[in-house]
Amino acid sequence: MDREAALQLVKKQLTDHRYQHTIGVAETAVKLANNYGANEKKAELAAIFHDYAKFRPKSEMKEIIISQHLPKNLLHFHSELWHAPVGAYLVEKEAGITDEEVLDAIRYHTSGRPKMSLLEKIIFLADYIEPGRQFPGVDEVREIAKVDLNEALIVSIRNTITFLLKKKQAIYPETFHTYNDLVMNKED
Amino acid sequence: MDREAALQLVKKQLTDHRYQHTIGVAETAVKLANNYGANEKKAELAAIFHDYAKFRPKSEMKEIIISQHLPKNLLHFHSELWHAPVGAYLVEKEAGITDEEVLDAIRYHTSGRPKMSLLEKIIFLADYIEPGRQFPGVDEVREIAKVDLNEALIVSIRNTITFLLKKKQAIYPETFHTYNDLVMNKED
Repeated sequence: MDREAALQLVKKQLTDHRYQHTIGVAETAVKLANNYGANEKKAELAAIFHDYAKFRPKSEMKEIIISQHLPKNLLHFHSELWHAPVGAYLVEKEAGITDEEVLDAIRYHTSGRPKMSLLEKIIFLADYIEPGRQFPGVDEVREIAKVDLNEALIVSIRNTITFLLKKKQAIYPETFHTYNDLVMNKED
Repeated sequence: MDREAALQLVKKQLTDHRYQHTIGVAETAVKLANNYGANEKKAELAAIFHDYAKFRPKSEMKEIIISQHLPKNLLHFHSELWHAPVGAYLVEKEAGITDEEVLDAIRYHTSGRPKMSLLEKIIFLADYIEPGRQFPGVDEVREIAKVDLNEALIVSIRNTITFLLKKKQAIYPETFHTYNDLVMNKED
């Protein structure tokens, strides 16, 4: 699917604000793909579709998690996590994307997972640092992302976990395992 | 075993500094037991023995973890975690303590675990807030511990995880699961 067709499909699913965010993620993902040797086309496609399910009703997402046998423990954690795996399902079903690498990058863009692929890392990080993002620590991660993809992921996930800890919120185990996987497999 | 006999056994295993810490943990554990309706004698005994294995050589602890089938993943995480489960083993073997509640309180005093018993919570927390402890956040936990045991645990574990995240260290999964268990089962 070409960029314009993908954008047209996605635009209908999103608010203007979220669509602008998506454009930012796509541009950032292409830059990161170029920098770290990933497939730019796949990065762009995954980025365009990453938030496809963002505005689906919670009831629909819940029904899909159950009927499609997505990880059930999602239902015990913040619903903000749901749109990523549900999105991977819907993007395949409704937009006809079948590339598993692209679908996995959509699937894991919020939770992460241990042993993420290069494409998964790029979409996760692009979502965190795209130019529209403004929160404490994002500029530091933007700088690190220019030189060390894994370190940028560690710092972004660390920031997210610290933020959730401050709010005394539960942390999705997959996210925590992603952090451990990255810090325990650093090459330095 | 009475207090004096226990203290004599433990004193030989510890530095003076760590022995003073142990006295502090025992006093704090008795107060918490009294406050929250746990068995004071068991709390005192578990507290006295909680750091029994603290100064065993790493090689001995490692050997015990392997030969006694303690959780193998301990070996992939900071050796600071090892003395608790190894201690439970040695306290039974060398000091003849057989009370499983007491041994579990020793076993989980550093990592925690989901669904901790009241006694386990008390020893974990007493170790964190005994009067000799001085680090950022400890006074806040001391205050909370007077009125809400679970909340005090949440804040103490949160502080520990945040500290490890800042240092980009791996976090033992059991500790993370303990945090999630506590925040997901809060009664408010």
